[in-house]
Amino acid sequence: MEVTRTLARFVIGHDAGQIPESVRHESARSFLNWLGCAVGGSRHETVERAMKALTPFSGPPEATVLGRGDRLDIMHAALMNGITSHTFDFDDTHLKTVIHPSGPVAAAILALAERAPVSGADFLHAFILGVEVECRIGNSVYPEHYDVGWHITGTAGVFGAAAAAGKLLGLNEQQMTWALGLAATQSSGLREMFGTMCKPFHPGNAARNGLLAALLAQQNFTSSDQGIEAKRGYAHVLSTKFRPDAITKGLGETWEIAFNTYKPFACGIVIHPIIDACIQLRREHGLEAGDIESVEAKVHPLVLELTGKKTPQTGLEGKFSVYHSAAAALIYGAAGEAEYGDDVVRDARVTALRDRVNAVVDKAMHEDQTRVTISLANGSAVEKFVEHAIGSLTRPMSDADLEAKFRGLAKGILSDAESHRLIRLCWDIGKLKDAAEVARASVPAGGVKK
Amino acid sequence: MEVTRTLARFVIGHDAGQIPESVRHESARSFLNWLGCAVGGSRHETVERAMKALTPFSGPPEATVLGRGDRLDIMHAALMNGITSHTFDFDDTHLKTVIHPSGPVAAAILALAERAPVSGADFLHAFILGVEVECRIGNSVYPEHYDVGWHITGTAGVFGAAAAAGKLLGLNEQQMTWALGLAATQSSGLREMFGTMCKPFHPGNAARNGLLAALLAQQNFTSSDQGIEAKRGYAHVLSTKFRPDAITKGLGETWEIAFNTYKPFACGIVIHPIIDACIQLRREHGLEAGDIESVEAKVHPLVLELTGKKTPQTGLEGKFSVYHSAAAALIYGAAGEAEYGDDVVRDARVTALRDRVNAVVDKAMHEDQTRVTISLANGSAVEKFVEHAIGSLTRPMSDADLEAKFRGLAKGILSDAESHRLIRLCWDIGKLKDAAEVARASVPAGGVKK
Repeated sequence: MEVTRTLARFVIGHDAGQIPESVRHESARSFLNWLGCAVGGSRHETVERAMKALTPFSGPPEATVLGRGDRLDIMHAALMNGITSHTFDFDDTHLKTVIHPSGPVAAAILALAERAPVSGADFLHAFILGVEVECRIGNSVYPEHYDVGWHITGTAGVFGAAAAAGKLLGLNEQQMTWALGLAATQSSGLREMFGTMCKPFHPGNAARNGLLAALLAQQNFTSSDQGIEAKRGYAHVLSTKFRPDAITKGLGETWEIAFNTYKPFACGIVIHPIIDACIQLRREHGLEAGDIESVEAKVHPLVLELTGKKTPQTGLEGKFSVYHSAAAALIYGAAGEAEYGDDVVRDARVTALRDRVNAVVDKAMHEDQTRVTISLANGSAVEKFVEHAIGSLTRPMSDADLEAKFRGLAKGILSDAESHRLIRLCWDIGKLKDAAEVARASVPAGGVKK
Repeated sequence: MEVTRTLARFVIGHDAGQIPESVRHESARSFLNWLGCAVGGSRHETVERAMKALTPFSGPPEATVLGRGDRLDIMHAALMNGITSHTFDFDDTHLKTVIHPSGPVAAAILALAERAPVSGADFLHAFILGVEVECRIGNSVYPEHYDVGWHITGTAGVFGAAAAAGKLLGLNEQQMTWALGLAATQSSGLREMFGTMCKPFHPGNAARNGLLAALLAQQNFTSSDQGIEAKRGYAHVLSTKFRPDAITKGLGETWEIAFNTYKPFACGIVIHPIIDACIQLRREHGLEAGDIESVEAKVHPLVLELTGKKTPQTGLEGKFSVYHSAAAALIYGAAGEAEYGDDVVRDARVTALRDRVNAVVDKAMHEDQTRVTISLANGSAVEKFVEHAIGSLTRPMSDADLEAKFRGLAKGILSDAESHRLIRLCWDIGKLKDAAEVARASVPAGGVKK
């Protein structure tokens, strides 16, 4: 069974006109969400350190580090933008595989597009195909591959980056097959790295290495023709189970990007139903902190297991505190990156309300459910039951929600007008004459503001 | 048990004065042999394609592609020199793990030494430590890790490159621990790639990525503190067995580079005893092709299994032909890269003798043994029994043998005088004020001769 070659043939032969409109729209949503995360993360210490380490080795400054003024060669830019976009762990999630699909693919081809101009339509097409490749490869080995200890965003992402870059480079079938082989033999990234700067390094590294794979294959640098399926290829070496059909069946009929989801809140997904309930109650009843006597949430056991931190001291700890998250949601009506700032976590008004939040395990609740009851100072109580949190496949964020999230991430980096323009460009990307316009528009007037 | 940190502490704390003289000499032998392979491979199509693909993205041209005039940024130079040095599969072998240890380490730090000058003594010290790290990590997971399908030169090599580069960069204990973690999460390279250009890509990629790991760690880019030993770290994810003691016990007391071996012949190791016997018989009896009626070799079964090609048509096929190898050895008294040229394999004098070579399986022969009998035109016969082939640990190549091998590899690329000077520099590397002198001396007058 030819898996790698089948995939290669599909990618090189596929025509942009065959993409359904709904899939195209979902890809714009994915791209918008990804770009916001990249801009938002662009001043983080993680990327500052990487920039300091690697800028001295950059080649021709042909590509933009998104949200900053710096320009690097395309492979270093791909690395940096993959890093920034995953720094907050706030990018998109393909729930079937827990891959964060946009990072490796978009970071690779946006950098490439700055060197070799390409229309927005072709760019979006390559993006969709890259996501298709990485998610199908993920589907073929998930969950066993993840259980072994691989960070699947890195290990599968490199294939997506190679395929998308290869599509834009116009590789032929043999070259695309080799590009996937070159991706296979660079596939890496360990889950052990979670909680360190190496986690966001993984999608960046996948973008960089996928781009390298495509560039080498373009010059007929040879590789295996069965990089994915061979006995000693990717799937068998990096997983205990392999379902080749998940890669080869129904190509071009279904689209994995249609299953992409976006996080409304900048924390672990288990707290999302509680935050969702709190924001809804705040809005529906015009609640203010002073009105609230106490908050009780009935939750799935995982919530306390993973996010039971009662008195977080830092922003990062706040992400592991259902108490802080509920309090911030009630006070600010949001739980974006800003609501997990160190200052917010230590703010007296927030900590006072946080200490009045209680979470109780209720085994009747499934992971996406919660029931939040708020006792008010006036003696009454209000309640909200959430069946599926906002951001899930069942209750996706609306386009307006995604825009609001983008604005929140870009705040302090871009002006409102710059943010607005960039959002418009993302929605219109399929119509742009030059896709790279988006990269250039991500840089605030005056470049990096530190 | 702290494995990664123990290794990091050892590398940063070790003093050059503690290296025994015999180990230092072996490291010069390894380096000389490696450099010859890199120079010899420097005009191969593999590196031509990689250069064409990647030169447009190079940063400051601070480091030399050995044997060529081109200069690239240090990470690209490390990649290229790792590729060229393994292109002929003629570099050194740590037999306990089948790691080719010099490639990833030497390619990384020689490039680094061109940017940040370092004495030859410090260079050699870092080289020895890098080899120690990669081979100990290899020992801890071999053979299970290799059996899973990993090309151990790539997967372990990245640690060696990171450690050696980190030593030269003066990383502290925490930074070195992170550098090893950054190496762990980039560890990659599949055995499926054997027979393609991706095989020599692996040591190059390990050199490039190890260097990247050290540079990031130098800027405090964080990683796991247990990249090697954690439940989801390198050893458990990439192997079915892990012996941490092989890494941590006896550090500084034994040296893995002392177990390094060098191939005298540019083909698979199973034919080496036969070639050895033929060359000895040729020399001892002054044999010429016309004197020889027929050749019979009693061989281990693997010889015919792996190298039973009767009528090879190309140089590469010649490497899988015990018949061609014996004929070439008898005619030329050598079996270097030159004796596996396409023209040599098709030469009438060679094919005529080749067709008079017979190989017979003798189960009494172990892998390193052979008995070769040559029937002469004058009716007499001569015979040679080889117990251990030249190049094995038991019968290592002499310093003079290594020099002859080097000259053979450099022929057509360097002049005799250039070759001679470069050999001298390798022997003297421990005394050089600036180790990078070796890299510069590898470039022939006039740069690349195509």
